[in-house]
Amino acid sequence: MATMRPKTTGSVEKRLIGLADLVVQAAERGKDPTIDIPVRALSNVKFNESRGIIEMGGNRQARSFFNVGMAKKFMQTMLVADALSELQRAGLTTSLREIYYRAKHTIQDSHENTFDGQNESDPLIEDLEVTLAALREELHVRAENAGTVIGPLVVVDDGDRVDCAKLGKGGYSVPSIVEPEYLRIKSCTADFILLIEKGTQWNRLAEDKFWRKYNCILLTGNGQPPRGVRRLARRLHEEMRLPVYVLVDNDPWGYYIYSVVKQGSINLAFESQRMAIPKAKFMGLSSTDPEKYGLPRNVGIKLNEKDIDRAKEILNYQWFQKKEWQKEIRHMLSVGLKYELDALANKDFQFLTNKYLPRKLKDRDWLD
Amino acid sequence: MATMRPKTTGSVEKRLIGLADLVVQAAERGKDPTIDIPVRALSNVKFNESRGIIEMGGNRQARSFFNVGMAKKFMQTMLVADALSELQRAGLTTSLREIYYRAKHTIQDSHENTFDGQNESDPLIEDLEVTLAALREELHVRAENAGTVIGPLVVVDDGDRVDCAKLGKGGYSVPSIVEPEYLRIKSCTADFILLIEKGTQWNRLAEDKFWRKYNCILLTGNGQPPRGVRRLARRLHEEMRLPVYVLVDNDPWGYYIYSVVKQGSINLAFESQRMAIPKAKFMGLSSTDPEKYGLPRNVGIKLNEKDIDRAKEILNYQWFQKKEWQKEIRHMLSVGLKYELDALANKDFQFLTNKYLPRKLKDRDWLD
Repeated sequence: MATMRPKTTGSVEKRLIGLADLVVQAAERGKDPTIDIPVRALSNVKFNESRGIIEMGGNRQARSFFNVGMAKKFMQTMLVADALSELQRAGLTTSLREIYYRAKHTIQDSHENTFDGQNESDPLIEDLEVTLAALREELHVRAENAGTVIGPLVVVDDGDRVDCAKLGKGGYSVPSIVEPEYLRIKSCTADFILLIEKGTQWNRLAEDKFWRKYNCILLTGNGQPPRGVRRLARRLHEEMRLPVYVLVDNDPWGYYIYSVVKQGSINLAFESQRMAIPKAKFMGLSSTDPEKYGLPRNVGIKLNEKDIDRAKEILNYQWFQKKEWQKEIRHMLSVGLKYELDALANKDFQFLTNKYLPRKLKDRDWLD
Repeated sequence: MATMRPKTTGSVEKRLIGLADLVVQAAERGKDPTIDIPVRALSNVKFNESRGIIEMGGNRQARSFFNVGMAKKFMQTMLVADALSELQRAGLTTSLREIYYRAKHTIQDSHENTFDGQNESDPLIEDLEVTLAALREELHVRAENAGTVIGPLVVVDDGDRVDCAKLGKGGYSVPSIVEPEYLRIKSCTADFILLIEKGTQWNRLAEDKFWRKYNCILLTGNGQPPRGVRRLARRLHEEMRLPVYVLVDNDPWGYYIYSVVKQGSINLAFESQRMAIPKAKFMGLSSTDPEKYGLPRNVGIKLNEKDIDRAKEILNYQWFQKKEWQKEIRHMLSVGLKYELDALANKDFQFLTNKYLPRKLKDRDWLD
């Protein structure tokens, strides 16, 4: 057995073809085709304190063809790689589910299917991502559009010049893949990016033309920001040097959403290097905001057991060890209440636009 | 007790204020303020065969203030109406959740809250919709943007001219409220509308510029189409006289999505008159398509018990009694398989764009 490490440079198509070459070479030499795959498991994930991101360690695992336990998975890996090569050759993108269907067939002279469910093909796509050092988007795998952007930003999408300051209150629908090959950032004169958890708060700010008065980009993913939204924020942050402020509910899930934007996630640690924004700031809601902004206790929601357990977990995360963060989370726990952004409407419908955010920005009142 | 029927004409603001006037008038006459509210229950819903929509019947119910069982609900109805009036006066829109927060406070000299949860305010907004004959959108209540459109359509949104044929592969993010006061349809040169259940299939067609070759509008709501998407399709259908073709998975949920677009839903029967598209056609997937287009059986998914029960329910719906529909549903049941649109990728990644839809359109192969 000769374990081979696939190429991680050159065009994505070449990297995919390189995999097949390894198999051919092994066969010619009469060896067992074996590829070396980075381990995607908690045991191989660590927080890189100096870079401020969650990243993968160096552990690798061999996957070989002539091994009863691995043969099927090896074959499936090659089928997925083949479908992905087809996408590269044809210049197409597709979904995880379609990859599964594309690669599914009944093996000749048998009743056995190559794949029985998408749960068999998805992890192999992640294996290939880490093995070939190519983001899912570079492998041309996308989800549906899921997010909206508005503000002084001009992009070029498929040859069209799209001015996100001239799209009314609706905005540009953020595609799942916003890599430079698909979306060119032509110009952006904004001073910062506001990444808003909830779509309805984004609508509040879009309706009030907040982005015009405060010269910013309003971006939302309608909940936990999907990859396209995170990647767009990261590109604007990096290429246009814009600070990113995150606006979420004050609950453990809000903290978590912020931390994924900032440090990346444990599950997709490999992607942090291209998705995470270590300098992103937490604009709110902070657990001290209700008092600061005069929100009545009756619009707070009692923390339930799950909230409390999750908050305690987060307290222990390495990337929440800063003094201010420990204070923030402990304060939420001691008050025993969580608050939604929507609760600001209790003051008045435009409180977010006219009072909350202006004061936050003026006081530079955010957490790092 | 004098039951009063609120105004259902004039500006929405006047209708809302009219409610308060009824209370004042009753008080001046020493009567119990009582309003007459159409009944929102299955018992008051029927399928109007000639109009082809599900609509509400004429049953009404009195809600009065001096009635122990109704007093709180009466007070809450007025608080919600007050919050809605505020929106009208200020020319703002907001979400269901924010209405709840806005109307929530602790009643003076008590520990009692006006509302304990959004589940108390949401139904009252529906009551006001039917009582005042105003769509939720006319009451300025919105959800987040949830849908995308692309194609030869020019709209005016907040003063901006948005050409949906020049938005690359991303498209215009469909707002929750697309009433004429917010979104003007300036021009549309398309021949038809394709309403696609799944966002990823929409992406396939947007990437392949299907809309350009077949001169159509591509519209998706990423699943069950939300109100904004349905209302936009209805407006384009009505104002631009465009046929609407619906493309869904071949399963009972796909049939149901189609039927909601076409006839409206039982839960929101009141809205059918402004949302339903009785002439919408079911483009597919049909249960006879897999054979017609050579899809292998192994990309079909075995119907589970829930699917079978739901299909049988749908077989009995009054609006699925046409011979072709009975055949369609019974065929799915007899084959015992459901098929997703995504399964077309088994043939090739562009099968939907290059083979399936062109043949469907050429053969005028759809169900009514």
